[in-house]
Amino acid sequence: MSGKDTYYIGEQSLTFPKDVYIISSASVVGKKEGEGPLGGAFDMICDNDRFGEDNWEMAESTLQKEALALALGKADVEPENVRYLFAGDLLGQNIATSFGLMDYEIPLFGLYGACSTAGESISLASMCVGAGYAKTVAALTSSHFASAEKQFRYPLEYANQRPVSATWTVTGSGAFLLSGKRGNVRVSGITTGKIVDMGVKDSMNMGAAMAPAAADLIAQNLEDFGRSPKDYDKIVTGDLGYVGQEILINLLQKQKIDISKVHEDCGILIFDKEEQDTGSGGSGCGCAAVTLSAHYLPMLEEGSLKRILFVPTGALLSTVSFNEGQNVPGIAHGVVLEHVDKEVQ
Amino acid sequence: MSGKDTYYIGEQSLTFPKDVYIISSASVVGKKEGEGPLGGAFDMICDNDRFGEDNWEMAESTLQKEALALALGKADVEPENVRYLFAGDLLGQNIATSFGLMDYEIPLFGLYGACSTAGESISLASMCVGAGYAKTVAALTSSHFASAEKQFRYPLEYANQRPVSATWTVTGSGAFLLSGKRGNVRVSGITTGKIVDMGVKDSMNMGAAMAPAAADLIAQNLEDFGRSPKDYDKIVTGDLGYVGQEILINLLQKQKIDISKVHEDCGILIFDKEEQDTGSGGSGCGCAAVTLSAHYLPMLEEGSLKRILFVPTGALLSTVSFNEGQNVPGIAHGVVLEHVDKEVQ
Repeated sequence: MSGKDTYYIGEQSLTFPKDVYIISSASVVGKKEGEGPLGGAFDMICDNDRFGEDNWEMAESTLQKEALALALGKADVEPENVRYLFAGDLLGQNIATSFGLMDYEIPLFGLYGACSTAGESISLASMCVGAGYAKTVAALTSSHFASAEKQFRYPLEYANQRPVSATWTVTGSGAFLLSGKRGNVRVSGITTGKIVDMGVKDSMNMGAAMAPAAADLIAQNLEDFGRSPKDYDKIVTGDLGYVGQEILINLLQKQKIDISKVHEDCGILIFDKEEQDTGSGGSGCGCAAVTLSAHYLPMLEEGSLKRILFVPTGALLSTVSFNEGQNVPGIAHGVVLEHVDKEVQ
Repeated sequence: MSGKDTYYIGEQSLTFPKDVYIISSASVVGKKEGEGPLGGAFDMICDNDRFGEDNWEMAESTLQKEALALALGKADVEPENVRYLFAGDLLGQNIATSFGLMDYEIPLFGLYGACSTAGESISLASMCVGAGYAKTVAALTSSHFASAEKQFRYPLEYANQRPVSATWTVTGSGAFLLSGKRGNVRVSGITTGKIVDMGVKDSMNMGAAMAPAAADLIAQNLEDFGRSPKDYDKIVTGDLGYVGQEILINLLQKQKIDISKVHEDCGILIFDKEEQDTGSGGSGCGCAAVTLSAHYLPMLEEGSLKRILFVPTGALLSTVSFNEGQNVPGIAHGVVLEHVDKEVQ
């Protein structure tokens, strides 16, 4: 542990007394995600989105269970050596997480950050490992198209039409093991988001609701760490989609920050817009998580990416708040991931 | 910071590199709670449970907003000097928290631990301050009788009968400021809970669903810290109620642990069973939070209590999981609170 007394930087950012690494991760997705542009990169693709379960919620629980099993297996870590789980999902009362992770019998911190939960969970897991509170912890999140449609929109059987600004909830779960044991990908800092409400009321345009929170977070991260966009190989948002991406880039340009050359969005990457009819792009907690695991982490591990800012964004609404006429505020949680050369210890 | 490298103790417990204190807290409750045995101790009691809002969810948001404002005021801390909020509630997608805390513009970690959230939020807040990640953070939770009935049970207008094992959701919010600045109440350790599922399927008997998780957590805390029940002046559960208390004491007696002399339950304390017709007792995130703030913290501050184990418990269900025939698993999060003599710094 270093002799430093405090680790907070600027307004909203943090570094850690001890080095924190993502030593393993896994992605489990549904059929549609498997047919998309990243299909070849996922660890497990299920042909049947029920995943052998009786209902969509249990299917989502199974996603989390399998993703964690795979991440543990890859790192050769037994569940009893994982000190804490940091996990959440989109469903009311986090039921996908509770019923998915129960059998592991690992102390659990349940989280809710809407689709920003991949960032929130990796942030808290990093804070935990970075303080010496645990040798190994896991961060994981999930979403499921059918359980989310049931929760937030209409029953699938209703076959409603979707506006082009709507996103398509990703069926998937990403699990991450974090440890002080040296690996090739270090979590070098985090920037934690505030709720940002710009008055968006359209629950079918989540990208517009979340883009201001992403802009706020990215600008703050750059200021806190004294960086400019070129200091990141990529700035990766979670699920802004095409609509949200344009708003994000414009909002930051007004602050004279140009991220257009380095910005990517997991929701844009995960589906083929033309072929897959997915509107503005993919969304859901699982979208950012599986894309980080399957697409970005391998590049950070091999060193073709040196440093990225990973910024999952969440839209803070429920059907109750929406029906009562509330706005859809957003939140974003940023994680700085860096390639390091692995030394023999 | 001490020279120790790790701070985990036993299977599920933790201490902190730097001392962590609860420097201030506040409780805001509804009319019925104000009429109960602890009525004189709460900071604010509202005559109208709408709290001036148009709906129950916004009323619950207002509870959180007011509780945090009071806790800040008591400690003379400005919102901009609070580095993080750790907060959650019972509603789907945590809307009471999101809409209640938005205006503070403080980085937020949204949590979901059902009624254990008071323990979860103070645990994570303590980990944060104890690592030197922040000077001052806030932990807060809320519940509201009417928003919870609407979410989990029946519309109030339906006027359904309640079984005697049912608990009465507390309308209230408790806010806690944690800091490294020396106060009279120190968070000396935490014990983080696993999900415990004993097969209870009755959502009208939350006490029975949560008691096994509380028993598991208390036994683990005693083992991890090498203590016996007499090392605590009180072991305080959140909302087991009369039904859950009996189960808890019996479960621990089977392990030859007798907590009957030191056990108290916030759900039992907060209402007068005979006068207020509240079934098995009070429940909800707010129950444990306001009782800790209004009843236990003052005794810890003055030293009439030297050390307590605070164990809020949560029942992990939603109407969806319940209607799909799932069990009601429980979780508990333990916080060790100790009186310390305040020195002039």
